[in-house]
Amino acid sequence: MIGGEALVRSLVASNVDVVFANPGTSEMHFVATLDAVPEMRGVLALFEGAATGAADGYGRMREAPAAALLHLGPGLGNGLANLHNARRSHAPVVTIVGDHATYHKQYDAPLESDIDTVARSVSTWIRRSTRPEDAGADAAAAVAAACGPPGQVATLILPADVSWSEGGSVAPPEPLTSRAAVRAATLDAAVAALRSKENTALLLGGTVLRERGIRAASSIAAATGAELLAETFPARAERGAGIPVIQRLAYLAEMAAGQLDGLRHLILVDTTSPVSFFAYPGKPSDLVSEGCEVTLLAGGGDDAVGALELLAGELGANLEPESGTPSRPDKPTGELGAESIARAIGALLPEGAIVSDEANTSGTFLPTFTAGAPRHDWLTLTGGSIGQGLPVALGAAIACPDRPVLALEADGSALYTLQALWSMAREQLDVTTVIFTNRRYAILRMELARVGATASGQRALEMLDISPPDIDFTALARGFGVPATRPASAEAFTADLERALAEPGPHLIEAVIPSLF
Amino acid sequence: MIGGEALVRSLVASNVDVVFANPGTSEMHFVATLDAVPEMRGVLALFEGAATGAADGYGRMREAPAAALLHLGPGLGNGLANLHNARRSHAPVVTIVGDHATYHKQYDAPLESDIDTVARSVSTWIRRSTRPEDAGADAAAAVAAACGPPGQVATLILPADVSWSEGGSVAPPEPLTSRAAVRAATLDAAVAALRSKENTALLLGGTVLRERGIRAASSIAAATGAELLAETFPARAERGAGIPVIQRLAYLAEMAAGQLDGLRHLILVDTTSPVSFFAYPGKPSDLVSEGCEVTLLAGGGDDAVGALELLAGELGANLEPESGTPSRPDKPTGELGAESIARAIGALLPEGAIVSDEANTSGTFLPTFTAGAPRHDWLTLTGGSIGQGLPVALGAAIACPDRPVLALEADGSALYTLQALWSMAREQLDVTTVIFTNRRYAILRMELARVGATASGQRALEMLDISPPDIDFTALARGFGVPATRPASAEAFTADLERALAEPGPHLIEAVIPSLF
Repeated sequence: MIGGEALVRSLVASNVDVVFANPGTSEMHFVATLDAVPEMRGVLALFEGAATGAADGYGRMREAPAAALLHLGPGLGNGLANLHNARRSHAPVVTIVGDHATYHKQYDAPLESDIDTVARSVSTWIRRSTRPEDAGADAAAAVAAACGPPGQVATLILPADVSWSEGGSVAPPEPLTSRAAVRAATLDAAVAALRSKENTALLLGGTVLRERGIRAASSIAAATGAELLAETFPARAERGAGIPVIQRLAYLAEMAAGQLDGLRHLILVDTTSPVSFFAYPGKPSDLVSEGCEVTLLAGGGDDAVGALELLAGELGANLEPESGTPSRPDKPTGELGAESIARAIGALLPEGAIVSDEANTSGTFLPTFTAGAPRHDWLTLTGGSIGQGLPVALGAAIACPDRPVLALEADGSALYTLQALWSMAREQLDVTTVIFTNRRYAILRMELARVGATASGQRALEMLDISPPDIDFTALARGFGVPATRPASAEAFTADLERALAEPGPHLIEAVIPSLF
Repeated sequence: MIGGEALVRSLVASNVDVVFANPGTSEMHFVATLDAVPEMRGVLALFEGAATGAADGYGRMREAPAAALLHLGPGLGNGLANLHNARRSHAPVVTIVGDHATYHKQYDAPLESDIDTVARSVSTWIRRSTRPEDAGADAAAAVAAACGPPGQVATLILPADVSWSEGGSVAPPEPLTSRAAVRAATLDAAVAALRSKENTALLLGGTVLRERGIRAASSIAAATGAELLAETFPARAERGAGIPVIQRLAYLAEMAAGQLDGLRHLILVDTTSPVSFFAYPGKPSDLVSEGCEVTLLAGGGDDAVGALELLAGELGANLEPESGTPSRPDKPTGELGAESIARAIGALLPEGAIVSDEANTSGTFLPTFTAGAPRHDWLTLTGGSIGQGLPVALGAAIACPDRPVLALEADGSALYTLQALWSMAREQLDVTTVIFTNRRYAILRMELARVGATASGQRALEMLDISPPDIDFTALARGFGVPATRPASAEAFTADLERALAEPGPHLIEAVIPSLF
């Protein structure tokens, strides 16, 4: 068996059966194996960023890795931004990067580059298969590494000759590492903080923002009066009717500092201590005020939900019953804008929906109007590198074929990885994309003032406007095989959204709206 | 003066007055400076790969660097593939990557990543400005480094606080390094080979493939009977009526080995010894046969054209007069295909055109039918990372506003960096794009067999087909603001091309053609 086949079969043996691929010559043996190994599903991407972002979305929803197949160093480069986001989401992702044959590297052929160095910037685990005999075991090790805990990007570099040479064998799955239980001392520290009668908050992130974790945290809050906050950009947050609403920490440091103001104890549960997204002149980076004690209850590799439940038990807190009644806003009327779109989404969001949210400034009203919608998952831009939303939606739709996916996209962000639309059309995935077209990098308009760049004028603002010319997203969508509309009113938008959600296959709705900034 | 302004003014002082930009928050002070420094022209890109590829195209045509402004590690990642190509083209490129404020990095904010490591894979020169006092001098040093010789990618990392803090000053240009003259011993070795009466060829690349270098090489060939060959993927080759035609070394190793077969001496002039683009099972990577002696007359940093002229003098060769008469093919008729398109381009290519050629397999007939067209420059895919052609066309059009630009694009390749079309529309550049739509990664169909992946079947081939669904490039072009047509015959294509070349501003013609593979 050649190394490439051993690798693919070993991935399948380790339950990795989807590969988001943008292959080249060095990956032809991997590709050729797809006929011999029908258990592996290949999903073609036109651009590597779509493939790596899809693997992130898949990993977040399935809690098991997909593979992303990339071509040499430049292919990895094209996939790097969404691997950066995946690193921050702690999704399990296996990246397979084809390389030149081992003996060919010395010749510095045109596509030769330092793959290992580039991979290191996003991967906790990197290995280079050097013999076909190792390819299978290396694949199994990559899967185990990707699974963590916490989930991470594991990169396996596969030279072409290792892939095409005989000698490989299928490796069994490696045993997965369990999450670590919370230590008694840590639990005691959290109990002490929560019993101190001083202002205390739990900041929740990672694995905790699902029903079980949220319910445990809510019971603690009810028993102790502690506040609950969620990290700013959760990889996956379960929301909707019956699940207690947890306020997210604001993106704007000024607002986040306000949320944290007056706290004497901050207990971190599967997240890190809050810092400003960017630095701003004269403003603190660390958002925790002096005099507030920070306690890490559970980090990325820990059983954070179990820790919360133990904590609840220690505190004698009763698990909250279902809270909150389903409540949807009325369908909006009148002018189309960020608020009416949020109302329409809140009115129509289907049961079990997965929302990939990269609406950025235009998404301001979404949390409020969707809180009482039926149960759904909300996926956000974890690493701050825009161009994640459409690929994540693609991956989530592959991971959960029975659930509707809604991609909420700022126009500027959508343009980094718009090629994901084509993969949605090719796979006929049930993804509805809403483009919030305000024709500018609105957040940069805001940031320009926040960083104190006050001397700017028309020429600077032109660098933040993505018009003229106006971009026509309905034409772009149709070009990629996705039917699209551009409704002119809130009523028309709502009707289009209802239809898109009801019909199978991908749809895109372009909403041209005034910018909030 | 703040560091950001010192940097921009120092770039301008060093004659860098164009920045291809896709900025974010960390680059807001650079952007804000554009109003104070009107000499610097900002060209906005919707995706970083368009910006870095444009800087490559600009550098190739202007032989002086433009800057590419990128946002943190992920922005550099998105630009990496075309920086890889730029590294191979030896175009001078200054990359400015904004980073978090120096004191903010410790907090591992979401967008924090290892920029230096990623930059190292494509940049010969990397520096991190650490004080506003240094920003101007660092910019001047980056320009000098980018200029080489040979040209290279120089990356300057600019922390946000260095950019926004006072203390900067404008730095004067650094003196540029001259190209090194050829050494007497090297010249003697080449003379001996050329006088040996044994089969000898000169392989020309880099700076040599312009009129002066080609003419010197041709005179040597005429005087000695030596063969002339050009490297496979020149960064810039001057061609057309009056310039001797130099055959390029074939992409396919089998064909290239045939071209080199029987040689006893191979003299390299501003290029490297020929190797196979990829390795193939059982085939050699080194294309030079045993018994052929390789002599490097001039490398990347040397005055290669001067060396050729000295060599011609030593050999008593007379500089060739203008050779070749202008000859254009007739306008094609009948079915549209790779050959009829090449004929149409040969019939219509305007004087002084710049051709960015990423037609790949569909470009097979182009060299033949354009050899006798009026004088033009031909830019190719230097580093093998597809998605270079449209950005290079964008950059060339900014570099040479008075020259028509023709981008010849394979459909699969165009889809990596299609966002470049929007920048062409925004700047109203005179770029005509021809998309060769064969709806597959045709080269991979060929490579699948060449690497011996013979067991492949339908599922493998589906990974090489970019249909279904069919991609509609006219819709995509219109979506980005570029008028587009899809002619159905050779006559209609020719008419559309004639109109597109005659009208100012960008145009796109989609040619749906049978695949050659």
